Amino acid sequence: MHTVTFLPGYRKIEVPRETTVLDAAQRAGLNINVVCGGQGKCGKCVVYVQSGKTEFDQQKNLKFFTQEELAQGACLACQATVQGDLQIIIPDSTLIQEQKILIEGLDTGIELHPSVRKYYVELLPPTLSDPSPDLSRLLWGIQKNGGPVAEKMYAPLEALREIPTLLRHSDWKVTGTIALVPGGYRLVDLQENDTSKRLYGAAVDLGSTTVVVYLWDLVAGKMVAVASNYNKQISCGEDILARVNFAKKNGLSKLQALAADSINAALTTAANSAGIDREDIYEVVVAGNTVMTHMLLGIDPGYMIAEPYVPVVRRALSVASGRIGIACNRNGGLFLFPAVSDFIGGDIIADILACGMAEKEEISLLIDIGTNFEVVMGNREWMFSCAGAAGPALEGGEVLFGMRANPGAIDKITIDPATLDPAYSTINGIKPRGLTGSGLIDLLAELLMNCVIDRNGRINTGFNHPRIRTGVHFPEYVVVRAEETDIGKDIVLTENDIKNLIMSKASVHAACVTLMKEAGISRQQITTIYFAGAFGNYLNKMNAATIGLIPEIPISQIKNIGNGAVTGANIALINRRKRKTLDEIATKIAYIELNAEPAFMDEYTSSAFLPHTDLSLFPEVQKMLDTCRLHRG
Amino acid sequence: MHTVTFLPGYRKIEVPRETTVLDAAQRAGLNINVVCGGQGKCGKCVVYVQSGKTEFDQQKNLKFFTQEELAQGACLACQATVQGDLQIIIPDSTLIQEQKILIEGLDTGIELHPSVRKYYVELLPPTLSDPSPDLSRLLWGIQKNGGPVAEKMYAPLEALREIPTLLRHSDWKVTGTIALVPGGYRLVDLQENDTSKRLYGAAVDLGSTTVVVYLWDLVAGKMVAVASNYNKQISCGEDILARVNFAKKNGLSKLQALAADSINAALTTAANSAGIDREDIYEVVVAGNTVMTHMLLGIDPGYMIAEPYVPVVRRALSVASGRIGIACNRNGGLFLFPAVSDFIGGDIIADILACGMAEKEEISLLIDIGTNFEVVMGNREWMFSCAGAAGPALEGGEVLFGMRANPGAIDKITIDPATLDPAYSTINGIKPRGLTGSGLIDLLAELLMNCVIDRNGRINTGFNHPRIRTGVHFPEYVVVRAEETDIGKDIVLTENDIKNLIMSKASVHAACVTLMKEAGISRQQITTIYFAGAFGNYLNKMNAATIGLIPEIPISQIKNIGNGAVTGANIALINRRKRKTLDEIATKIAYIELNAEPAFMDEYTSSAFLPHTDLSLFPEVQKMLDTCRLHRG
Repeated sequence: MHTVTFLPGYRKIEVPRETTVLDAAQRAGLNINVVCGGQGKCGKCVVYVQSGKTEFDQQKNLKFFTQEELAQGACLACQATVQGDLQIIIPDSTLIQEQKILIEGLDTGIELHPSVRKYYVELLPPTLSDPSPDLSRLLWGIQKNGGPVAEKMYAPLEALREIPTLLRHSDWKVTGTIALVPGGYRLVDLQENDTSKRLYGAAVDLGSTTVVVYLWDLVAGKMVAVASNYNKQISCGEDILARVNFAKKNGLSKLQALAADSINAALTTAANSAGIDREDIYEVVVAGNTVMTHMLLGIDPGYMIAEPYVPVVRRALSVASGRIGIACNRNGGLFLFPAVSDFIGGDIIADILACGMAEKEEISLLIDIGTNFEVVMGNREWMFSCAGAAGPALEGGEVLFGMRANPGAIDKITIDPATLDPAYSTINGIKPRGLTGSGLIDLLAELLMNCVIDRNGRINTGFNHPRIRTGVHFPEYVVVRAEETDIGKDIVLTENDIKNLIMSKASVHAACVTLMKEAGISRQQITTIYFAGAFGNYLNKMNAATIGLIPEIPISQIKNIGNGAVTGANIALINRRKRKTLDEIATKIAYIELNAEPAFMDEYTSSAFLPHTDLSLFPEVQKMLDTCRLHRG
Repeated sequence: MHTVTFLPGYRKIEVPRETTVLDAAQRAGLNINVVCGGQGKCGKCVVYVQSGKTEFDQQKNLKFFTQEELAQGACLACQATVQGDLQIIIPDSTLIQEQKILIEGLDTGIELHPSVRKYYVELLPPTLSDPSPDLSRLLWGIQKNGGPVAEKMYAPLEALREIPTLLRHSDWKVTGTIALVPGGYRLVDLQENDTSKRLYGAAVDLGSTTVVVYLWDLVAGKMVAVASNYNKQISCGEDILARVNFAKKNGLSKLQALAADSINAALTTAANSAGIDREDIYEVVVAGNTVMTHMLLGIDPGYMIAEPYVPVVRRALSVASGRIGIACNRNGGLFLFPAVSDFIGGDIIADILACGMAEKEEISLLIDIGTNFEVVMGNREWMFSCAGAAGPALEGGEVLFGMRANPGAIDKITIDPATLDPAYSTINGIKPRGLTGSGLIDLLAELLMNCVIDRNGRINTGFNHPRIRTGVHFPEYVVVRAEETDIGKDIVLTENDIKNLIMSKASVHAACVTLMKEAGISRQQITTIYFAGAFGNYLNKMNAATIGLIPEIPISQIKNIGNGAVTGANIALINRRKRKTLDEIATKIAYIELNAEPAFMDEYTSSAFLPHTDLSLFPEVQKMLDTCRLHRG
């Protein structure tokens, strides 16, 4: 055995005498450019022997190098054999550079390093002097063409049964698909001729309402299609609770099939729009909440909806996609994000991956708001999480003219301090039909800043203004007069609506503060607040701080990551190394049960004001309020 | 993180503060005695803190230790938590000693260390303060009861689907079966209540004629039954070649099923005789020749019977037993020995494991003789192998009165130098019906030593003796007169029989010498010759050397290992560490194609004498021959 040291990285490997320098480099994990598969023909695998003895055919080398280069020790790694301890310099141009992929919603590129790869090989047929088994011949060929070390690859039984005929039928020209799995590299597919460019993967956000699929070309590192579909489980129950109850009545297998069908529908749409065959999709990465992933796998979610709220499994899982009816390659793999608990699911772990907070030294706060909210705080050392019911107000529910972010929803609104008349925009630009979450937050902040409402959320009926009036049950502010709407009646915000909005925002704020107290962190120590999910899309960050939805930090440090679940799934699909960190992240996150924390209830009460009972926590808001009050008198 | 060092072995592990010393020890791979599962009740996990800080409940400790022991740092590993870097002494009595198992045909015991184990656990049900997922709860319980580290275990999808109901239905008292597989430890079975004593495994010698099964209790480490069955493939062809041709005519799936059925038949007989349920057999280890293992797996063996003789796969394989129709536990595993080439199969690798030659520094020669012979020579550094056709003579074929080792076969014979009359024994002691291989070798050696035949194998018709006569075609020696036989006619050995015997023995000897030449080894450097297979059972070692079947070495150094295939399978079943070495052994063995070696043909010609043309290679035989000649004159 001899030691070969590769510079500049000082990677060392022990290899037997006569090993080629290429083999040694590959075993050391270096990704060498070998276009010809190590036949000494392409001249790409140039290395420089700095010290030690190698042997190679001088004649072959002369074709590729000048005398000067030869004097410096230049040779082809695939031709030179190790004859003693060596120091080898590998120039940058000899290494295959990893491609950086840009993913929607991310500032930095991600290296293209998927867990499944294809290798086209042209093998020499066996002879009496080289009667190696078919499997070895194939795997060595794949190794030579840049694949993993042959001994670390394995073929499942079905592949072993196909290999001998397929190799001979294809005249020893085949494409092998290799996937990294626990315990090694699996030969998941073997095809005749060169199909190495046909390798696709899908990243899936499996939501309870909508399934979103991003389809990626894993060779070119390009996103080729996006598609979405309603979650077909809606036929078994509108919300998660109803579906779990449906599952309890022997409905689990139906819910499993519907979840798979929903993914398949989006996958088919995406594949069709990109003009690719679903058989060429070898991997599907799914991020979803804990109940959704249990259902997709056909695992009973029933123990998650009642005390003590126990999931069956929370770690990351890899399963054969065929086992759960996902319509991709018959030997394709499915990777599911891990969860922290029943409430902090794989979608939140995907958010964490997307915003990168688990890799930073600075402390971040991640907030995902829907009917429920999830909050995660921490950095690369520690993380706390919690979840709770936000109530539907922030999504437009329990508010008289609240609505989802559909066409006609007011998503942004300002109020003219002079006239108290609003200026607004609607989704799709049509006449207003109601207000969506971001519109409601804007409105609340603007009404507060114009003293139309006080910090208790009460409407100042003392204002003599046509937009401020007493409605059937409550005082109200007329946002849009009937004639300007698409619905033919006044769109108003009532005092009761405001109460519901304050209760919702108070829950979120109290959750953030509870985590901060748990970690002993002040608001000044929080570097960034990330909003994940659709809620953040239209949100006016300043207004979110003004009403006290979130702790006050400089506006420039509040960021919206959009659909973090699918962004995280994209990252994990593109780069398998990122995937390896997920279980570690999930294990690191402590889950705080808010209902068991007296601090939460205290903080909730204090947060049920605009922005808070303690204005010193919101110095910027206080300044603005003071200014407004001065103005209004 | 703190570093815990365990003495006396100096095993180190990094663990977070508050980890129990027991957890740390288990993570460091130490097998600690914890009868109570780590509840501080049994007092078995005694350790001594040599340096560093731990925390534990003094009161609990007082129950188990004297003041003197406490002063020495005694504590229970399950109760003490790590509070800083530690040095811990683990007394021998705290470690679970591995049981040594005696296997038929082996002098030394093998440690009981199977790749599948059962763990009975009584889990605490989840509560609001401990809502861990079902899977984590189960795996932590298994880890606490001495199983692998929880993070290294995983559950397949079918187990995940069963876990929640099964845990609750069994009141959280379950037995988990854990198998070591590539990439981790797999939960292969989960049963209600305590079934931990019901864990069996089978070692199989899959021969082309006979299938032998040894059934083992893998908890007690006891062999509980042996059974055998004809290989049912015989209905598709008597010999391997005929069966491969049958396979080529769309017969592979039938041959696959028949191979599995043959194993199942023996497995059922063994299970029935031991009174166990086949569902409790979790692992089957199979050693067989390369064609047989291909057929058992349903892999085309067709390219092995013609040039360039290429198998599909030669490495060791693990497959789900259900995939190939083996009737054991539905989630059972099947392990197949690796092969070197189409001619040196898993049965020979099992022989090598059985005789231990791959672990020794001394050089050994292993010979397995049937219709074909296989020879392996080497030590723990290097090995050469070859194979060839011995012809059927040594098995009693192509010899007028030759027969297999069935009742009535003469298996041992001597000739009285004074009378030239034979004395013999037969199998089962009945009247003779013919001669088996060992009887033929005895007879040849005795006739040579008594100058009845010369070194060319010609019968000395000059002898005036009633047993020496000329038969219909050839001179012959009358072994048994008709009236003493069971067949009513003279049992004779003809000069033609002798010629065939010499041709067979010359092949074997020439093969041995070819390997010796290849390795540059003289006969004096060979420490041991091992005979594997039925052939060695009755063989008179002295006579084998006398006729020149094998190189001459001291008789005491010639050993018979019997059915090495099943012994090797037993070892691999009992101890998974031994199994790990097999691929390495198989890869290390160089295969020498005898037909491509001119040295072999030369040596064959030289070996076609009794014992050899060059008597200096057989100094002891020469001495005996000289003595005999002097005696006879």
